[in-house]
This record gives sequence, C-alpha cells and structure tokens, in this order.
Amino acid sequence: MAVYTTLAALELATLIAHYDVGTLVSAKGIAEGVSNSNWLIETSEARFILTMYEQRMDVAELPFFLGLLDHLAAKGSPVPRTIHDGGGAAFRTVGGKAVALIEFLPGVSVDRPTPAQARAVGAALAGLHRHAADFTGERANSLALPQWRELFADCGADGLASIDPALPATVAQELAFLEASWPHHLPRSVIHADLFPDNVLLLDDRVSGLIDFYFACRDLTAYDLAVTHSAWCFDRDGTFRADISAALLAGYGPLSADEAVALPVLARGAAMRFMATRAYDWLNTPADALVTRKDPMDFARRLAFYQQAGAQAFAA
Amino acid sequence: MAVYTTLAALELATLIAHYDVGTLVSAKGIAEGVSNSNWLIETSEARFILTMYEQRMDVAELPFFLGLLDHLAAKGSPVPRTIHDGGGAAFRTVGGKAVALIEFLPGVSVDRPTPAQARAVGAALAGLHRHAADFTGERANSLALPQWRELFADCGADGLASIDPALPATVAQELAFLEASWPHHLPRSVIHADLFPDNVLLLDDRVSGLIDFYFACRDLTAYDLAVTHSAWCFDRDGTFRADISAALLAGYGPLSADEAVALPVLARGAAMRFMATRAYDWLNTPADALVTRKDPMDFARRLAFYQQAGAQAFAA
Repeated sequence: MAVYTTLAALELATLIAHYDVGTLVSAKGIAEGVSNSNWLIETSEARFILTMYEQRMDVAELPFFLGLLDHLAAKGSPVPRTIHDGGGAAFRTVGGKAVALIEFLPGVSVDRPTPAQARAVGAALAGLHRHAADFTGERANSLALPQWRELFADCGADGLASIDPALPATVAQELAFLEASWPHHLPRSVIHADLFPDNVLLLDDRVSGLIDFYFACRDLTAYDLAVTHSAWCFDRDGTFRADISAALLAGYGPLSADEAVALPVLARGAAMRFMATRAYDWLNTPADALVTRKDPMDFARRLAFYQQAGAQAFAA
Repeated sequence: MAVYTTLAALELATLIAHYDVGTLVSAKGIAEGVSNSNWLIETSEARFILTMYEQRMDVAELPFFLGLLDHLAAKGSPVPRTIHDGGGAAFRTVGGKAVALIEFLPGVSVDRPTPAQARAVGAALAGLHRHAADFTGERANSLALPQWRELFADCGADGLASIDPALPATVAQELAFLEASWPHHLPRSVIHADLFPDNVLLLDDRVSGLIDFYFACRDLTAYDLAVTHSAWCFDRDGTFRADISAALLAGYGPLSADEAVALPVLARGAAMRFMATRAYDWLNTPADALVTRKDPMDFARRLAFYQQAGAQAFAA
C-alpha cells in the first residue's frame, strides 16, 4: 500500500484532458494496491481511480486486465469499467509509466463479514465465473503450484525454519501431496484468484464492487472458490467460521460432484499459495520497512485446519 | 505520507455513527500527512477527511488546532471545519488514538503555480492572519530559532558535512547572524507556518482550501509570509521566480516599513527552519525507507539566494 510516484497537478490536469470526463476538481493519493500507485480523482462529472502501474507490472498484460474489466462490467458484474481516452485507448503513458483511469465504485471492505455478506460474495464470484466464460483473453496463472515450489525453494529450509521450526517439513509434505492430487481436469474460466475481503466493496449486504484483478488468470473456477473460502472463513484469531463458510458456498451455488470432492485439496492449495508469497515476502522485507509484512503462519494454521477438517470444512 | 493504522469497516461505521453525517458509503486511506493517518470518507450526506493522530502528535494540542479551524472557517477563511460529534466533542478516541472528522474541501495542489495563483495564495494568507487576530488559543512555535540551533547541533558537524562539506560553516554563521538580527518586535498573530503548495488547494486561480495546520502557532505574521515566499517562489530546479514573488507579495498586501525591512532576514530564517528539519530527517531516516527524504540542500540553495539578493528578492 503506497503511492510511489508524485503526479503534479498540472500533469494530472493534462492527463485528464485526454478523457471525456470533465475537468479536475480533486486528486488524493490513496493507500491501495501493493505494486501500483493510485489516486482518487474527482472531476466536474464523476469520480475515478487513476492507477499508475509501477515496476512489478508487465505492461503487456494490461490489455488482458483492462479488457477483462470491460467484459465483466458489460455482462453485469459489479466491477469498475475502464475509461477509454479520446483515441479509444484503455491506457496511456505518463513519464514512461502506464496509467489507466477506472470507474470509482462506492462501498467499504468489511473486516468481519456477516453470513448475508458472505452469501452475496459467493453469488458475485459465481457471476464473475459465468460472465468470464466467453472472455477470450488469455493469461496463465503465474502463482500456481510450480511457482509455490519455487517460492518455498527461494526461502530455503533455514529461512522457513526461522519462521517456524515445523515449516520445512510441512511445506515439503504438502507440496508432494498437492502435486500428486491436484485436480487439473476441473472446469476452467478466467478467475479473480485473490478475492480477499479488501478486494470486495459492500454496501450493507450488497456487493457493490469486485476490485484489484491483477492476479486474474485462466484457472480452475473451484480453485477461485477455495481461495475465497480461505480468505473469508476465518476470524482474526484464526477460528474457522462455519456459518460464513456455509453462506459463501450457498451463495456460490451448486458444484459438480468432482468439484465438491476436490474442494478440500484446492483449499489446501489456496493456503499454500498465500503461505508461499507471504513467507517469501517475510524473509525478503526488512522488519523496519513501512510495508506491513503479512504473517505466513496465518495460512499455515489454515492449512492445518483444512488438512484436519477435510470435507467437513465445506459442510452445509 | 502514510497510513499507519488499519481501521476496519465496522470500526469506521461505528465511529461515523457518533456524528450526524449520514451512513458510511466509502472510505479510502489517503497518502497525506506526515505523522497522521488519513481517510477520505464518503457518507450518504457528504465527504470528510478522517484524521487519526499518531505518536508524534501531542493530544493536548488538538483543541488548539481544531479550534483554530473552526474559528478561521467561521470568519470566512477557506479552511475545513471540524465536525463535532453528537456530544459536541471536536475529537474522539479509537483504540487509544485521537481521531477528528474534518470537512472535505475540493481543489488540487499545484506544482508550478501561475502568478494569478500566487496572488490568490498571498491574499488567502493575509486573510488568515486577519481572521486569526482575535483567536484566543495559544501555542508557541516549537520550531523557532532556538530549535533550529538544537536540530543542527543534533546533526553534528560531521553529519552536516556528510550532506555538504560547506554546511557546518554556513549553518554556524547563519545561526549567529539570525540570533543577532531577528526582528522579535514585529506584529504577531496565529500563523500557519508551513504553507507549502501541498497545503493549498486551488480550483483554477481560486484558493479553495488551506489545510494541514499542525505547525500553526503564535509568531510573526511577516515570518509566515517569508515561509510562504521560500516555499512558493522557486522552480523545481531552484531558479527564483520573480514573477511569482511579486504576485505573492501583491496578493498579501501592504507591509509596515519595519516588516518590509525585516523580510530578507525572515526569509533567511525560513530557509534555515526547513534546512534544519530536513537535515535532521536526512541523517535519521534510513536511505531505503519508503518515506521520501527531502533534500536539505534545496533550502541551503534558497538561503544562499536570500543572502545574496537581500531586499532585491522582494522587489515588486
């Protein structure tokens, strides 16, 4: 969460003039996005999020991400539309960096969802998968099982042990298990792949926005549900919330028998995916950096829960 | 510029419910304020800035700062009003930290002001001094000449020399000069003391907001003009902008003969004030911290300009 780049007012006004959105009234750098700089922009006509893509983003992937937003919005998913400039372009370049102007959506991210909110999130995720079905853009998942193994290897056994003495053995066993049992044959679509509570905007029980699609890729839709399950169904202290789980799954709707059987494996995979990136960041971020490191052990505990609970974690 | 604290949606909604401002619609952490966390809050009725005062703020001073905003707004200065809660309090406490809800003002900060904008800023500063004249709050300037000496002493001659070899001698000579010639007898009021371009919001040539009063204190009004002059009248590359200077001074309006004579000394003081805090921060902020260190030499060069130009820097 940072604003890496200062955009002077004159540059902003000049940039905004390339879009048919009125004149600049206000601009505030906002603390959202891990590898982008973002501004909340108000013009005489409406509000927008201006995103500047920093070093970690491959600009060649922008047409996929921005095209996906437009596709999903046109289908009725609550995702922000990309505003195209006067020449029809979905992004422009300022000072050598790509920028995109994106619709502002109201709503707040919740920290402790209610079952009604979890049900709405499940339904919104199902809608997203349905609406993405005929999207023709292609992007492979760059954080799939082979990359988890690479990230854990980069951490090293000593690094993992410095986080928790049991972690090297846990990771080795779990990677072997997942590689042996990953259900590659399940239905695919373009998925969000990172639908944490801070990427969902809610107005009371209604999902007003699904945001931050920069991990979106083509992968198993049931894996996306598992990611969302692992991100939503645990309290701050790590306690499993069976009521939230049941509501999320009910909102998502029926799964095929194969998907239902695979869900415990996919959830273990989801826990490993976030353990992998968090462990890597934990070991490679200075303790005194202003960026908050997220504790990889949160997901080690969720992994242990999914290992023990099996199908019980997904009971109605 | 940072958001130090995470405020969950539920806490925000609970907090907002203590104010007669409608219900929460949106909340974005914004990258403003050096020692506070700030959110841009939208409710069903209006928009607000929510400020959480972090460790560097003495809560005992909040009534001064927030009372000053209310006083100036009531007099017609373009400053944000403090929203009082249902019990009439100007600030509340959340998780042990003070928070205040403040009116949102439109406008953008400019990087390269036009003369018309500089004139408007001068006029707004004069209005602020006039409107503050009968404000009864008291706060001494905690960054006045004695504190500059302390800050430079904390840097040490070696520290200053590591920034620039000539700096220790420049600082010693200038502190002696200022201590011998500081015009303590000039008119006083409550002053802003930090009116940099990022603390002024503009809509075209109109000042729509003066913000960030957390250095406000009782001191010489002509010193506030000198601070503003040192902050506005130089290009990014350090070139003096005579046209901006003339417009700022014309907008501010007539000075007494004593003030006009003292202005070159006060501007040298202003340059020293920002050199002092920037040099201290430069030496005490890790180079790899996410906080951008501001180069103290920017103000060393402005000091050199004021030393050489004398009264010519303030010619019409």
